[in-house]
Amino acid sequence: MTTSEHTEHVAGGDHQSATGATAAVAGWDALAADGSVVHIRPVRADDEQALDELNHRVSDRTIYLRFFALSRSAADQHTRHLTTADPLDGHVALVAEVDGEVVGVASYEPMRTDEAEMAFLVDDAVHGRGIGTLLLEQLAAVARERGIRHLHADTLAENGPMLRVFMDSGFTEVHRLDSGLVELSMDTAYAARTLDRMAERERAAEERSLKPLLAPHSVAVIGAGREAGGIGHEVLMNLVDGEFTGHLFAVNPHADRIGEIPAYPSIADVPGPVDLAVIAVPSVAVPAVVEACGLAGVSGAVILTSGFSELGADGRQVQRDLLKLARRHSLRLIGPNCLGIVNTAPEIRLDATFANVRPLPGSLALAAQSGAVGIAVLDHASRAGLGISEFVSLGNKVDVSGNDLLLHWWNEPRTDVIGLYLESFGNPRKFGRLARLVGRTKPVLVVKGGRSSGGRRAGASHTAAAATPDTAVDALFAQSGVLRMETLEELVDAARVLSGRPLPRGSRLAIVGNAGGAGVLAADAASALDIEVPEFSAVTAAELTDDTGAVGAGNPVDLGAAATPATLEHAVRVILNSGEADAVLVTYAATRAGDVGETYAAIARAAADSTIPVVVTCLGAPNAEPQVVLGDGSALPVFPFPETAVRALGHAMRYSEWRTRP
Amino acid sequence: MTTSEHTEHVAGGDHQSATGATAAVAGWDALAADGSVVHIRPVRADDEQALDELNHRVSDRTIYLRFFALSRSAADQHTRHLTTADPLDGHVALVAEVDGEVVGVASYEPMRTDEAEMAFLVDDAVHGRGIGTLLLEQLAAVARERGIRHLHADTLAENGPMLRVFMDSGFTEVHRLDSGLVELSMDTAYAARTLDRMAERERAAEERSLKPLLAPHSVAVIGAGREAGGIGHEVLMNLVDGEFTGHLFAVNPHADRIGEIPAYPSIADVPGPVDLAVIAVPSVAVPAVVEACGLAGVSGAVILTSGFSELGADGRQVQRDLLKLARRHSLRLIGPNCLGIVNTAPEIRLDATFANVRPLPGSLALAAQSGAVGIAVLDHASRAGLGISEFVSLGNKVDVSGNDLLLHWWNEPRTDVIGLYLESFGNPRKFGRLARLVGRTKPVLVVKGGRSSGGRRAGASHTAAAATPDTAVDALFAQSGVLRMETLEELVDAARVLSGRPLPRGSRLAIVGNAGGAGVLAADAASALDIEVPEFSAVTAAELTDDTGAVGAGNPVDLGAAATPATLEHAVRVILNSGEADAVLVTYAATRAGDVGETYAAIARAAADSTIPVVVTCLGAPNAEPQVVLGDGSALPVFPFPETAVRALGHAMRYSEWRTRP
Repeated sequence: MTTSEHTEHVAGGDHQSATGATAAVAGWDALAADGSVVHIRPVRADDEQALDELNHRVSDRTIYLRFFALSRSAADQHTRHLTTADPLDGHVALVAEVDGEVVGVASYEPMRTDEAEMAFLVDDAVHGRGIGTLLLEQLAAVARERGIRHLHADTLAENGPMLRVFMDSGFTEVHRLDSGLVELSMDTAYAARTLDRMAERERAAEERSLKPLLAPHSVAVIGAGREAGGIGHEVLMNLVDGEFTGHLFAVNPHADRIGEIPAYPSIADVPGPVDLAVIAVPSVAVPAVVEACGLAGVSGAVILTSGFSELGADGRQVQRDLLKLARRHSLRLIGPNCLGIVNTAPEIRLDATFANVRPLPGSLALAAQSGAVGIAVLDHASRAGLGISEFVSLGNKVDVSGNDLLLHWWNEPRTDVIGLYLESFGNPRKFGRLARLVGRTKPVLVVKGGRSSGGRRAGASHTAAAATPDTAVDALFAQSGVLRMETLEELVDAARVLSGRPLPRGSRLAIVGNAGGAGVLAADAASALDIEVPEFSAVTAAELTDDTGAVGAGNPVDLGAAATPATLEHAVRVILNSGEADAVLVTYAATRAGDVGETYAAIARAAADSTIPVVVTCLGAPNAEPQVVLGDGSALPVFPFPETAVRALGHAMRYSEWRTRP
Repeated sequence: MTTSEHTEHVAGGDHQSATGATAAVAGWDALAADGSVVHIRPVRADDEQALDELNHRVSDRTIYLRFFALSRSAADQHTRHLTTADPLDGHVALVAEVDGEVVGVASYEPMRTDEAEMAFLVDDAVHGRGIGTLLLEQLAAVARERGIRHLHADTLAENGPMLRVFMDSGFTEVHRLDSGLVELSMDTAYAARTLDRMAERERAAEERSLKPLLAPHSVAVIGAGREAGGIGHEVLMNLVDGEFTGHLFAVNPHADRIGEIPAYPSIADVPGPVDLAVIAVPSVAVPAVVEACGLAGVSGAVILTSGFSELGADGRQVQRDLLKLARRHSLRLIGPNCLGIVNTAPEIRLDATFANVRPLPGSLALAAQSGAVGIAVLDHASRAGLGISEFVSLGNKVDVSGNDLLLHWWNEPRTDVIGLYLESFGNPRKFGRLARLVGRTKPVLVVKGGRSSGGRRAGASHTAAAATPDTAVDALFAQSGVLRMETLEELVDAARVLSGRPLPRGSRLAIVGNAGGAGVLAADAASALDIEVPEFSAVTAAELTDDTGAVGAGNPVDLGAAATPATLEHAVRVILNSGEADAVLVTYAATRAGDVGETYAAIARAAADSTIPVVVTCLGAPNAEPQVVLGDGSALPVFPFPETAVRALGHAMRYSEWRTRP
C-alpha cells in the first residue's frame, strides 16, 4: 500500500488516520477527491520559498478571502511566521503537497489553553479536490493530540468553498455574524473520534487482509451433506474437481467422509488450522457456526446460506450481529447469500462455489453482488476463452465489499482487469477515490444494476441493496474513470480486449478483411461510438491495392472473397507498419473455400509484434476458436459479430484516453 | 397476389398498370403511401349516395379548393352529373375506395377532340396517403387509351396538397396565373409511357416468379472443379451434403464426374431440363455462360463470381449487359458476387452456398446484401436453434432485389419472419409500401449497413451500393413498420421471439426466476426500452409469496436460490393466469444444486397453453439447450443474458403495437 518512502498509508480522505499525527513521521498520504495522492506534513523551515510561491501563485480573490484584504505582503509576513515560529508556542502548521509541490497550508494559533484559531490557504489550481477537507481533518487530529479542544475560524460569508469544507467535515458549529463574517468552531474531540473510528475501520481492513480468504492453505466446508444436489456437498465437489491444492475438510456431524474428504462433527474437531470456512448450514445455525469458526481460529468465512438482510429488518439485525461476532474474532466474512469464491492461481486452484462453470485461469478479477450475474459472466468468459484470476460473489456484503476487493486487486499481480457487478455502494465517495487510483494501473469495468425502479425493487429484496440514484452513479463513474458497461456481455467483451495486450493510443480504427459487409457494419458501429475510421494515405492505399488485390483500400479494406491467408497477413502488416491506425479489426468470413486455422495463423504472424491492439471477428465458422493465440502465449480476442468487436475496442480507447489524461 | 375477387393485382402506386384500363374490369388495386390497399374503379350510378356522403364529409376548405367556392350544392350537382352523364359524351370519372368506402373521386370532361379538363376531390381523412396521385395516374392512363392527349386543370395556388400531387407525378406543366390560379397540364402520352414502363417491370417481376430459383427440381453447378477449396466444388459439396432432393449436375469440360455427381462439358450437354444454374466460373466467362443458360432454357441463375459492379464503371457496364442478356431469355439472376441461396423445405433441401454453416429448417427468411453478413446471421441462428426457411445472398442485386423477395416471402407459407441486411435501396418508396403491406402479416426486421461515411465507403466498393441518407432510412422504416435492428445479433434475437409463438398484446413484462441479479438487470433493460415492469396486484403477489416462498413478489419475482422446478412452474402459472402481464421472462441461474433439464421441463409445462410470449434466460449452464421445446413442438427461446432477452421482447412488443394500429 506504500506509495513512497515517507508515507504511512493511503486511505480515503475522510478516513485519514489521526493517530499518525502522534508518530514522528514525515507526513501522511491521503487520496484527494480526484484520486490523486496528497501528502500532508508539518511545515518545515525550508518551505519558505515554496509558500512564497504559493502566495504569489494564488488568485487575488483567494488572497482576499484568506486575509480579508488583497495583501500579498500580509501573506508573506504570515509565511515568515509559519516557518520560523517556535513550535513550543503551541503553533501548528501543515502543508499539503501534490507531486512534490506545496499546494496548500493550514495552521492554528493557540488562543487559550485549549482553544486555537485556524486558517487555510489552498492553491486555486487544485480547488474542488477536497484538499481543504484533508488539511482540516489532519489539523483537527493534531490539535486534539496537543490538548486543543476547540478550533475556531472566522471566514467571509462569501467564501463558499471554505464554508463547504467545514460543512462537509460534518462536525462544525457555524454562526453567521452580521458583519458578513461566519464564525466556525469545531470540537476536536468529536472530530478526532470520528477520524479515529474511520481510521480504525480502514486500518482494520488493511491489517486483516483478504489473503486467507482468497488464497487459503486449508478449507473446511461446513454443512457438506452426503447427497448430491445440496449446496454444501456441491461446493465440496467443486473444490475436489477443481483440484484445490491445500487441505480440504468437511464438517458434518452425521458422516465420517463426504466422498473422499474426511468429515468432522464440528469445526473444532478439524485437525490443524483452517484458513477458510465455507458455510452452507441453514440460516438459523449460521451464528453458532460463525462463533465456532472464530473460536477455532479460522481466518475467513464464506457464508453461502441465504435468509438474512434480503428478508427485511429481522434479517438485517441478525446480519449485524453476525458481523459483530466475526469482528470479535477477527474473522472476515464474505456473503451471506452468495455463490462462493474462486482463485485460479495454479498454486491454489480454489473453486469454492456451487456453480456449474469452471473458470479458466486468467487475468480478469470479478466481484458480483449477485451469484446469478457472477455465473453468467463466468460462463460467457469461459466460452470466450477469457480467464479469471479471482472471483468473489459478494452477496449481502456484510463485511467484504467491492471497495475491499478494489484495494486487494490493485496490487494483485495476476489481475489485469477488474470487473464489478454492483447493485449498491456502501461508500460511494470511497469507491470513487479507490477506483480512480486503481484505474491508473488497471481498468475497472462496472455493470451497475438497479437503474430503474423495477430493478431497484428487485435489488432491495435480492441483496438488500440501498439505492443510489443513477445520475449520481454516472457522475461518480465519470469522475473516477470507471468504465460503465451497459450489459454483462459488454463487460466480458471489453475485458477480453483489455487483457494482456497493448492499449490503443488513439481512436483511429483500421478495418481489414475478406468480409465486405462486416466491414460496413464495423465502420457504422465505430461511427456511432465516435471512433474514427480514417481513409488511408495514398501510399498505404497503394501498397494495399498493389500487393493484396484489395477491392477497396480506403478503410475499411475489403480484400474480396478471393483473399488468401497470405494476402490478409500482408494487408495487416501494411496497416500496422503504416502508423495510420491505433487499433485494427480483422473481419474474416469463413467459408468452405477457406481455412480458418491457416487464417488464424496468418493473423497471429502479422500481429505478433504489434504495439496496438488487433482484434478479430470471425463469421460463419461454428467451431472456430474464440481467440487467436500468438507465439508469446497472449491471445487476440475473436468476436462473433463486428459490432461487438468495435464496441469492446471503443471501451479500450476510452480507458486509454482517460488514463493518459493529466 | 390477389387480395379480393375484384382486383387484378397489387402494385406500387407509382407503378400502377395503365394497361388494365383497357380491360373490362371492375377496377385496379394499388398501395397507398401508408400501405393500405386502395381500390380504384370507374364511377357507377349507384355511387350517388356514397359521393353525396363524401361531399358532406369533407371539410369546408376542401370544398372551397375543389369548387373555388364554399358550395355543397355545387358539389351535389357535380355528383349528379358524374353518376348520370352519358359515357358516350367522353366524360370519365373514377372513384377511390378504401375498405369499401369511397374516399375520393377524379374525373375529366372533354374540351376538344384530344383535350380534357380534370378535377379531383379526396376525403380529408385520407389526405397525405398519395390517393390523389393514384387517381391522377389512373385517370391519365384511361385518358390516353381514349385518345385524350392533354389533360388540364386549374387549381388555386393555395391548394398545396393538390399541387404536390401534380408535382409528384413528374409529368405536368405548370403555369401560375396572376388571378391566384395555377393552370396545370399534362401530356397523357408521356404519362402513359411512364406508367407502361413501370407496369411492364412490375408485371414481368410477377410473371417471372422466383420459384424455379428457390425451389428447383434440378440444379447445375457450372464451374465445379475437381479440387476441394474451389467455390464451385464447395457449392456442389454443400448441395450433396445437404441432400438436395432434385437432380444435380456439374458442368466442367475437364471431368466426367465431380465426386459422385455427373459432369458435362457445357450446360447445353446436360440431359434434361435445368431449373437453376449456379455459376462459379471466372468473371470473364460469365456472360457466355449466362447466354448458354438462356439458350438451354434454364429458369434462373445464381452468379457467385465476383468482379462486376463492385470494381467500378466497367464492371457496372458488364453487369448491365448481363441483365439484358438474361432478360432476353427470361432468365432470372441472383448476384453476381454472392454466396448463394438456401431453401430448407424438406421436399427441396437446397443448400447452394459455399458457406460452412448448414442452416436448420425453420421460419426465418433471410436476404443479405453481403455474403459475410449472411453467414454471420445463419451461424448465430443455428447456434440459437433458430431455423431458416429460405436464404438469399443478394450480392450486387443485378436482378433479384430485396423488394422481389419481400413480395415472394409475403405468401411463402413456411416463412413467419423476414430478415434483411441491406446496404442500399433500389427503390426506397416501393420498399416502404411493400414492407408495410407484408408487415401486416409478417414482421420485417432490417439491419441497414452504411449509416456512417466509413460504412458507405466500404459499401460502395463492396456491393456497389448507392447511398440513402440514414435519416431517410429511419423515416422510411418508421412509416412502413419495419423493425430496424441495430446489430445482426439483435436481428436473430428478435426473430427468435417472433417465430412461431404468440405476440405480446401490450408492454407489461413480468420477470420471474431464481436469479435475483438477472431480474434486476432485466428490469433495468426493460425500463430503458419503455417496457413496463408493473408491480403485481396484492392478490397475485400473495399467491406468489404463499405458494412459492418468493423472496420478492413485487415483479421482478425472486424465488430465491432455494427455488425448485415445481415452485418455478407454479410461479409462472400464477403470473400467466393473473392477466397482469403481456410477456414473461423467466430468469434461471443454473448451479450444481439444480437440474437444467427438470427446470426446462417445468417451464415447458407452465408455458404450454400460454397466449402471451414466454422467454427464458439461462445463466451458468454451458451445455444448456438454446430453447425450451414445448409439447406442440414450438419452442421458447433461451437467451444467455437477461438484457438480450428483454431487448428481443421489446421488438416483439413494438411490432405488435404497430400491427394493431388502425
